[in-house]
Amino acid sequence: MSVVYERVALIGLGLIASSMFWAIKRSGLANEVTGFARSAETRQTARRIGLCDRVCETAKEAVEDADLVVLCVPIGAMEAIAKDISSVLKQGITVSDVGSVKRAVIDAVTPSIPNNVHFIPAHPLAGTEHSGPESGFASLFDNRWCLLVPPEDADQGAIDKLSAFWQGMGSNVDQMDADHHDLVLAVTSHAPHLIAYTMVGVADDLRRVTDNEVIKYSAAGFRDFTRIAASDPTMWRDVFLTNKEATLEILGRFTEELFALQRAIRQSDGDHLYDYFTRTRSIRRGIVEAGQDTDQPDFGRSANADRDGK
Amino acid sequence: MSVVYERVALIGLGLIASSMFWAIKRSGLANEVTGFARSAETRQTARRIGLCDRVCETAKEAVEDADLVVLCVPIGAMEAIAKDISSVLKQGITVSDVGSVKRAVIDAVTPSIPNNVHFIPAHPLAGTEHSGPESGFASLFDNRWCLLVPPEDADQGAIDKLSAFWQGMGSNVDQMDADHHDLVLAVTSHAPHLIAYTMVGVADDLRRVTDNEVIKYSAAGFRDFTRIAASDPTMWRDVFLTNKEATLEILGRFTEELFALQRAIRQSDGDHLYDYFTRTRSIRRGIVEAGQDTDQPDFGRSANADRDGK
Repeated sequence: MSVVYERVALIGLGLIASSMFWAIKRSGLANEVTGFARSAETRQTARRIGLCDRVCETAKEAVEDADLVVLCVPIGAMEAIAKDISSVLKQGITVSDVGSVKRAVIDAVTPSIPNNVHFIPAHPLAGTEHSGPESGFASLFDNRWCLLVPPEDADQGAIDKLSAFWQGMGSNVDQMDADHHDLVLAVTSHAPHLIAYTMVGVADDLRRVTDNEVIKYSAAGFRDFTRIAASDPTMWRDVFLTNKEATLEILGRFTEELFALQRAIRQSDGDHLYDYFTRTRSIRRGIVEAGQDTDQPDFGRSANADRDGK
Repeated sequence: MSVVYERVALIGLGLIASSMFWAIKRSGLANEVTGFARSAETRQTARRIGLCDRVCETAKEAVEDADLVVLCVPIGAMEAIAKDISSVLKQGITVSDVGSVKRAVIDAVTPSIPNNVHFIPAHPLAGTEHSGPESGFASLFDNRWCLLVPPEDADQGAIDKLSAFWQGMGSNVDQMDADHHDLVLAVTSHAPHLIAYTMVGVADDLRRVTDNEVIKYSAAGFRDFTRIAASDPTMWRDVFLTNKEATLEILGRFTEELFALQRAIRQSDGDHLYDYFTRTRSIRRGIVEAGQDTDQPDFGRSANADRDGK
């Protein structure tokens, strides 16, 4: 793999930015990667673990002379950081981001982008339940999708270059418009996260079942929800505040469907339940066939879940 | 490990029974294990893969001379199978089951248990999204909990023997009364399963987002739901039909909480969301600390998710 951008600046040093750094280094996609984080503690951690070639004390210093600037901060922090760096962006460079909601990021960042700078929003669909500068790893994006959401008048050369960069980090790349992105993600990510958070909150709240029982007996299904509900609270607060309409629409559909299934339970309508549960199996098969998940039972989580071990 | 029961009969040969067979063999817990499945195809598969020492053509034949009979059929099939085998059960032996709902199984099976036979219902909290005779493996129960739900007047010797048997298969063993069991499982398993099934159904149904998009972009959270929603439809239909009250109670609490979070989103109440999402993280930590899940990011699903690989 060869250098795509001479110098890359990562603003915000959490799970995504730190994974990007290791993925860039793995494939030699940039000659220098600078980094900035608002918190002094994060900057110190980054320096200690060798995250970024140079960790800067200000965002401005980090983006100076950068050919690609990637905003990796929570969505609610995008506007302020864009304003802050606006004046030092070089002509002809690209600014991008990794936010989980695209319309809100575009609205927040676009006003601060100089005319001669390309703004190509992006969203790598990858993550884990861990967060912070120490949670990143080089393979996070391998075979995951990265969605680019360029404005209509975007420069094709700038799009192609950013695509090559994400492909270099292991991603598959697609393009989509911002509103469709926000709807698709409401289905595949935002609604499931809110639902998982809700279920974990309910379990924690229930007085007649102790936390200890919930923890001990979680392997029966609940623990998969707790993984999702362990995700970064700041990031997710901002996702829901900024993808409000699409999330509420999907949650509305979800509630409607849940009520129908609750009624089927109450009325002992076994056929309705059986048909519904049969239909949902095929989506799983599709995901496994598309290489987006493992067919190993329990995600291969049980190290010994190996039929050869019989 | 030494023999706990001379002869064990497994009635129904799906994921749980087949895993029990391999776990029994791994530790030498019985000298002979017989098996029966209603479907001729399942019996044929069992013979082909060496599942059970002897696969019988009738349930009666399988339980003849057994010292432990374990009913491993869907809950809705328990009553008929118990009636069928009732007349051939030896004096002093133990009948148990592995059903996910205990009150309903007790009501269905108890009338068919002769006076001189011990009935000790049980529920191993273990499983995967796969089903059928080929899905079992010896380590399924390792470090998972098995809940025994003995009647009040149960024979202590019979309870101890069944405990030793499950411990021999790798489980931790607890005791609980049937109604509390059904409530705890409604929280840790039944409600989460219904919610996962619902969300996957909604995604499949949504016309403005294609199935192809749902599949490609599932890694953002949704795919964990699809694993749960790929579970056996017959088993889960029966769970919801027989643990109706507890499941509906928990779903009611869930909906109430979901509505509160939806309102927080609508009203842009970021603090409420942030506080809620912070609280749910601690349950996850408890589960990992209790050895009921891995702390590896993404369940260790990404083979390369290894910080050493930076």
